[in-house]
Amino acid sequence: MIIKPTLLLDVKKCKKNIEAMFLKTQKHKIDFRPHFKTHQSLEIGSWFKELGVNKITVSSFDMASYFSSEWTDITVAFPVNILEIETINALAKKIQLNLLVESLDTINFLKENLKHEIGFFIKIDVGFNRTGILPTDYQRINKILNSVKPCNNISFKGFLAHAGHTYKCRTREEIELVHKSAIDFMSRLKTRFIEQYPNLIISLGDTPSCSVADNFSGVDEIRPGNFVFYDLTQNKIGSNKISQIAVALACPIVAIHKNRSEIVIYGGGVHLSKERLEDKEGIIFGRVAEQFDIGWGEVIPNMFVKSLSQEHGIVSVPKALIDKYKIGDSLIILPVHSCMTSNLMKSYKTLRQNDIVRL
Amino acid sequence: MIIKPTLLLDVKKCKKNIEAMFLKTQKHKIDFRPHFKTHQSLEIGSWFKELGVNKITVSSFDMASYFSSEWTDITVAFPVNILEIETINALAKKIQLNLLVESLDTINFLKENLKHEIGFFIKIDVGFNRTGILPTDYQRINKILNSVKPCNNISFKGFLAHAGHTYKCRTREEIELVHKSAIDFMSRLKTRFIEQYPNLIISLGDTPSCSVADNFSGVDEIRPGNFVFYDLTQNKIGSNKISQIAVALACPIVAIHKNRSEIVIYGGGVHLSKERLEDKEGIIFGRVAEQFDIGWGEVIPNMFVKSLSQEHGIVSVPKALIDKYKIGDSLIILPVHSCMTSNLMKSYKTLRQNDIVRL
Repeated sequence: MIIKPTLLLDVKKCKKNIEAMFLKTQKHKIDFRPHFKTHQSLEIGSWFKELGVNKITVSSFDMASYFSSEWTDITVAFPVNILEIETINALAKKIQLNLLVESLDTINFLKENLKHEIGFFIKIDVGFNRTGILPTDYQRINKILNSVKPCNNISFKGFLAHAGHTYKCRTREEIELVHKSAIDFMSRLKTRFIEQYPNLIISLGDTPSCSVADNFSGVDEIRPGNFVFYDLTQNKIGSNKISQIAVALACPIVAIHKNRSEIVIYGGGVHLSKERLEDKEGIIFGRVAEQFDIGWGEVIPNMFVKSLSQEHGIVSVPKALIDKYKIGDSLIILPVHSCMTSNLMKSYKTLRQNDIVRL
Repeated sequence: MIIKPTLLLDVKKCKKNIEAMFLKTQKHKIDFRPHFKTHQSLEIGSWFKELGVNKITVSSFDMASYFSSEWTDITVAFPVNILEIETINALAKKIQLNLLVESLDTINFLKENLKHEIGFFIKIDVGFNRTGILPTDYQRINKILNSVKPCNNISFKGFLAHAGHTYKCRTREEIELVHKSAIDFMSRLKTRFIEQYPNLIISLGDTPSCSVADNFSGVDEIRPGNFVFYDLTQNKIGSNKISQIAVALACPIVAIHKNRSEIVIYGGGVHLSKERLEDKEGIIFGRVAEQFDIGWGEVIPNMFVKSLSQEHGIVSVPKALIDKYKIGDSLIILPVHSCMTSNLMKSYKTLRQNDIVRL
């Protein structure tokens, strides 16, 4: 029974997404280090454990601390925030902690302040231009590597990249092109440094590439995260079908405006987030899915969240359908970006009405 | 000492904003029923109490429940979510609860299910077209009013509107125009219904109008909320100066890219929200303010958050300034939308390092 905006989780779809990605890593004989920033839940994490996954990725030390109760090998795939050195030391004492480094300043700080062993990856910018070292900037890479040679408690793990520019792709071919360029850059780095560091690995990790691509040559591990739930953005990119989206926000209907064929839902920017998607109707903030007794189905054509205030959502409804709804019903909204929505909602309600908590 | 993204609150600026709005209501002899959805904090609420304010507005029953420990007269300015009837009854038993009604279905549901007295406002749509009854739709208004005549525990309080289309304004004149049209519509309603309901009041409430306008004829109470903190959006509209913005997100610097004059901060969409503002530089997600030993000053020209990931923010920095910053410093980011940022951050750190909690 829905009373307030509630984030529903279809466990079956979620486990299927997890299994599919796991099988892909098995097929390609690459390691699976899933990113847990999307679900941030020990319980959902345990579904990976059941498959034999034993290492994870997160994007903050808060998440690393939370997951460190059950996971012993964690990469924090975010440029080290040196101000958190106390947390870093506490984690490094407890688990195999891998950090992301891209500057001499950061590695020097770590050398001076670390009290326990860590591994580190050098963050490579394969074209997303968010952060990282250019894959041809050997000088900067060597400076970092050379600076830690005399260090016993800092070991170089390899090169890590996030081809986030796949999020701008809109076809499978575009994704494959971006992915190909990323693995080419990373393979060249591997070739160049493997003699010196025979155990170095290449870690890649965006959900579009990992979902779509079928060439992982030179790649040692992947770190996709969003695939666990998927969402409308990934669907638009081409990563998933609507039927694979595993979370949806159930929102009570609080007003109906037949004259303009709109429904007002209790479900706003503080629930869905203000993440937007440019689609055929213009900017949208969610789509309405067909509702079943248990769970949901495909999206209802031309029915979407057209705007969001703090608590209100305005849903554009096809004229032929507006009479079907009444105040007190709920609509099932597929999110534009499931990471942001689940960060706001903080817990999941399974279709069997169980609550799954998260950080 | 900043360690992680931290929402700073300049208490002096905040209290000054509160006092200015309070004095305005005194000058115009109108009631002040501030909206608490922006700060959602009992402690900040107490600063209103010190001035003699004794009634408030919120936008959810969760907020009403939270504030009901210290406030006895609360309007929930959101179309009633009838699914929360249990909470409504619990609140109605405890405090003077005022609801927002705009349909016969809702009022009929309340008639049948309410166990305690409530007041209600009819929500009028003065042109924002989000929700509410058109101010000329006397038929629908009369239907609602007539349906509750025989009810002892439901009393009509008046008409309520939110001229949210002021958020699309970019000059004082535009705001005044929108506001004038809203008070004209509401005054006509008042004239028409005052004989029948001699105690009815007219309640208006957006921050741009309440900040800028100087004509409140016919208005009985105002319900602005955002003014308590203000933000870049309100500044762009013309509601406030930069020096009045009372919250800012302190974000550690984790990477510096001199080649493209960009800084990567720990501070992303889960901290600032994905709320965006179209400004002279294009789409921005925040601006960097000049940093003082205690607090902050004006915005630094041409220094702004150009994009946000879940945890990363990318700050565009003027070339002449990039050498000033180092990893481990923090930047002070003024938010695009303070309501959304404070909803994500969940607590405030005053400039004296005290923590202020919120819902």
